Amino acid sequence: MNSFFKNTGPYDINFLVKKLIFSKKKKFNKIKVKGISNLKDAKRGDISFLESPKYLLDLKKTKASFCLIQNKFSKYLNSNTTAIVSEYPLLDFILIAKIFYPSADTDIYDFKQNIKYKKFLKNNTLIDSSVKIGKNFKVGLNTTIKKNVSIGKNVKIGSNCVISNSIIEDGVIINDGTVIGKIGYGFKYINNKLHFIPHIGCVEIQSNCYIGSNCSIDRGSFSNTVIGNNTMLDNQVHIAHNVKIGKFCFIAGQVGVAGSTEIGNHCMIGGQSGISGHLKIGNNVHIGGGSGVIRNLNDNQKVFGYPATDIKVFLKSKQREF
Amino acid sequence: MNSFFKNTGPYDINFLVKKLIFSKKKKFNKIKVKGISNLKDAKRGDISFLESPKYLLDLKKTKASFCLIQNKFSKYLNSNTTAIVSEYPLLDFILIAKIFYPSADTDIYDFKQNIKYKKFLKNNTLIDSSVKIGKNFKVGLNTTIKKNVSIGKNVKIGSNCVISNSIIEDGVIINDGTVIGKIGYGFKYINNKLHFIPHIGCVEIQSNCYIGSNCSIDRGSFSNTVIGNNTMLDNQVHIAHNVKIGKFCFIAGQVGVAGSTEIGNHCMIGGQSGISGHLKIGNNVHIGGGSGVIRNLNDNQKVFGYPATDIKVFLKSKQREF
Amino acid sequence: MNSFFKNTGPYDINFLVKKLIFSKKKKFNKIKVKGISNLKDAKRGDISFLESPKYLLDLKKTKASFCLIQNKFSKYLNSNTTAIVSEYPLLDFILIAKIFYPSADTDIYDFKQNIKYKKFLKNNTLIDSSVKIGKNFKVGLNTTIKKNVSIGKNVKIGSNCVISNSIIEDGVIINDGTVIGKIGYGFKYINNKLHFIPHIGCVEIQSNCYIGSNCSIDRGSFSNTVIGNNTMLDNQVHIAHNVKIGKFCFIAGQVGVAGSTEIGNHCMIGGQSGISGHLKIGNNVHIGGGSGVIRNLNDNQKVFGYPATDIKVFLKSKQREF
Repeated sequence: MNSFFKNTGPYDINFLVKKLIFSKKKKFNKIKVKGISNLKDAKRGDISFLESPKYLLDLKKTKASFCLIQNKFSKYLNSNTTAIVSEYPLLDFILIAKIFYPSADTDIYDFKQNIKYKKFLKNNTLIDSSVKIGKNFKVGLNTTIKKNVSIGKNVKIGSNCVISNSIIEDGVIINDGTVIGKIGYGFKYINNKLHFIPHIGCVEIQSNCYIGSNCSIDRGSFSNTVIGNNTMLDNQVHIAHNVKIGKFCFIAGQVGVAGSTEIGNHCMIGGQSGISGHLKIGNNVHIGGGSGVIRNLNDNQKVFGYPATDIKVFLKSKQREF
Repeated sequence: MNSFFKNTGPYDINFLVKKLIFSKKKKFNKIKVKGISNLKDAKRGDISFLESPKYLLDLKKTKASFCLIQNKFSKYLNSNTTAIVSEYPLLDFILIAKIFYPSADTDIYDFKQNIKYKKFLKNNTLIDSSVKIGKNFKVGLNTTIKKNVSIGKNVKIGSNCVISNSIIEDGVIINDGTVIGKIGYGFKYINNKLHFIPHIGCVEIQSNCYIGSNCSIDRGSFSNTVIGNNTMLDNQVHIAHNVKIGKFCFIAGQVGVAGSTEIGNHCMIGGQSGISGHLKIGNNVHIGGGSGVIRNLNDNQKVFGYPATDIKVFLKSKQREF
Repeated sequence: MNSFFKNTGPYDINFLVKKLIFSKKKKFNKIKVKGISNLKDAKRGDISFLESPKYLLDLKKTKASFCLIQNKFSKYLNSNTTAIVSEYPLLDFILIAKIFYPSADTDIYDFKQNIKYKKFLKNNTLIDSSVKIGKNFKVGLNTTIKKNVSIGKNVKIGSNCVISNSIIEDGVIINDGTVIGKIGYGFKYINNKLHFIPHIGCVEIQSNCYIGSNCSIDRGSFSNTVIGNNTMLDNQVHIAHNVKIGKFCFIAGQVGVAGSTEIGNHCMIGGQSGISGHLKIGNNVHIGGGSGVIRNLNDNQKVFGYPATDIKVFLKSKQREF
C-alpha cells in the first residue's frame, strides 16, 4: 500500500497490546511491529486484523506477523502469523492504527503554495508544495490540489476540483467539480465514544482513466482505493473507501459503490446502479442500469434489478408480474 | 425558527387579507400580525396555514393567531386561532410571506469580505462580513461562505464548498464541494404565473455532525432544515427544504430526502435510498440500501425495497418471485 | 445546431471517404461536404449517419447530402441523400467528425480573463474573454465561466459553478456547484483503440429555467443538449449529452437522464428516477420517484416502478405481492 501519511512506528508488540480494549492481555516476546495493513497487503512485521469471515482466504495467505482475530477463527491462521485474540478485531485495530498514524483520521488543512506552479494562481488554481506533476499538465480554474498528490504525464484536471492524497497516473482526465482523496465514511463506537477510522490509504487513478464531473472518490482506510487503467466513470459517481475497480470498465452516471468492494476488469455498470460493500464482482460482468447488487457476482454474469439477479430470471419474473 | 432574513412586519391583518387571491374577503378587528410561521413553530401574533390534513395535529396545538385554511378543516382550529378561509391556503400564504420577507424568494448575491478572515484570502476562501466564527476554525481552499452564516467552535469546512444561511454548531465537519443553505426547490403557479416560494428558514447543522463531499442541503421555506447532532452524512446526499433529521443517524451515500420529511433519532439509511416528502420516520428505523420510502414508518421498523416494506415481507416476496 | 467549435471544412467527399475504415471505398462525384450533423438537424451539404433503426423516421426526412448507413437500411433513404454504406456508421462518422472539428473531443483549458468583467475577480469569479453577458447579471463567488458561453439578460449564476460551451437564455437561474457544458461520456473502440467521441454541440438552457445545485449537464455530441424554457431542475440532476427536455417540466432531485433521450413538455419526473438513453418521452408524462424508465412513453402516461410501468398496473402487482 502506498501511503502519504507518516508511519510513526515501529512499536513493540507488548506496548501495542496494552492499548487494546477488547483483547485478552497476554505477554508476547519483545518484537518490533513495523506497520499496519489489511491481510492481503501485509508484509512480514506488520499487524493486521480479520474483520469478517469474508476475508478467510486472505487470512490463510497473509504475511502479517500478528493478527487481531476472534477466537473461533484463529485456527485458520498460517504458521507465520501470531493471533491476538480480540472480541472486536476491527475496533482494536483502529486503536493501533491511531498509534501508528495519529493524524490520518482527519483531512489535512495545511496548505503551502507550490512556487513551481505559480502560473496557475491567476486562474485561482492552488497547488500544494508537496505535489509532483509530470509533463504536459493541463488544469482548469478554481481547482484545489492539496497535500500528498502525485500526478503523471499528460494529465488533465478540470475546474473547481479538489484533489488530495492521490496518485494520478499518466493520461488521466478528471472533470469539473470532482472530489478525490478525502477521508472515507467510516466511524465506530468504542466504549460509547465515536471514533473516526484512520484513512491511511490513498486513491490510485491508473493510467488513461476518465472521471466525470461532480464525482466523489474517497481514499482508503487500510488499503488504497483503486481505479484501474482505462476505466471510465461518468458524472456524479460515488466510490467509497477501499474500493478496487479493475481495468477497462465503463461506469455510467450516478453509480455508487460502497466500501471495500472489488470489481474485476471489463465490467459495464449501468446508470444509478448501487453495489453494496465488501463484495467481489468478477471480470466482464454487466450490471443493468438502476440495479442494486447485494451479492458477489462471478465472471461474465449479466444482472439486473433490485436485488440484482440474472437478467433472464429477472425478465421472466416481470412477465409473470405484469 | 431562526431566520437571517429581516421581517418587515408587523402588518395589520386587514392589509394582509386584501392581498389574498383565494380567500373570502372579510373584515377583521384591527390586529397587528407579527410574523409568519408553519403551524408547529408559530407564536402568538403569527399567521400560519394548513397545507394538508397531514398537519391536523399541529393545527390543534398551534399558537398562531391566524390560520389560512380550507373551510372543511376550520372546525379543527383551537380557540386561540382565527380562521382565514382560503381555497388554496399555501398559495395565499406565499403571497403573505412575500410581504413580510420580500427578498427571501431568491439567493443573495451581495458579498463583502470579512476583514477578520483576510488570512484565508490567499487560499481563495472568501468569507462574508456578516459571518461569525468560533475558535479553532479550519477551512480549505476556494470555499465560499456567504451572508448569514454562524459557525461554532472546532468546525472544519473543506475546499470548494458553498455555505449560506446556516447555523453550523460546534465540532461539525463539512467536506469538499458541499453546498449548504441555498434556496429550496419550491414553485407554485398562482394565476398562471410561477412564483418561487420564499425560503425564510435556514439550515441548522447541529454539533458534531459530519457532512460528506458534494452534498446539497437546502434551507427551509417556513421552518428550518435541521440535521441533528452527531448525525453523519456520506457523499452526494441531497436534503431538501424543511427536512428535519434527528440525532445519531447514519445516512449513506447518494441518499435523497424530499421536502418537509421528518426523521427520528438513531436511524440508519442505506446508500441511494430515497424518502418521499412530508413523511414521518420514527426513531431507530433501518432503511435498506436502494429503498424507496413512500409511507410513514414507526419506531424500530426495518424496511427494504421499492416501495419500501418490512424486510421480512420483502424477502418472502422475492423468494416467491425467483 | 449551434456550435462554438470551428468547422474546418468544407472537404471533398472523396477525401473524407478515403479516411473511413468500415465503409466500402467507392468513387463519388467531386462534391464539397460543408458540415456534419445528426439526421434531424442536417442541412443540404451535410454528411450524417444512421446509428440505429430508432432513427428511421429522421432518416426519411433528412436533408443531409450524404449518410453513413448499414446496407440493410439504405432502402429507406430519401432521394436527396446519397448512401455511404458502412458496417459501423457511427464509428466512421466519428472519424469524419474529427476531420471537421479536430479539437472537439476534449475540453478546452485555454483561458483569458474578460477585462469587461474584472469586477468579479475580487470574488474569485473568472470569466473568459469570449463570454458575452446580457444586462442585470448576477454571479456568485469562485465561479468559472470558460470559453464559448453566451448569457442572456437577468441571469443568476451561483457560486463554485463551472460553465462552458453553453447558451444561457434570459432569466435563467443556475445554483451553486453546478457544471454545465463539459464533454459528454462517449467513447468507442475503433480498431482496438479507444476514441473519444467529438462533442461539437453545446448546452442550451432556455429562458427562465431553474437549475439546482451540484447538477451536471453535458454538451451534445452531434446536436445540442437542450433544457426547454421554464423547466425546473432540482439538486444533483445528471443530464447526459444530446438530451432534449421540453418546456415547463419539473425534474426532482438526483434524477438521471441518459444520452440522446427526448422528453416532451409539462412532464413531472420524481426524485432519483432514471431514464435510459435514446428514448422518446411524450408530453405531460408523470414519472414516479425512483422509477427506471426503459421504454418510450406516450403523452399523458403516468408510470412508476422499475422497470417503469403504468401506475395502476404497478400498484395492482404490488398488492398481489405483499
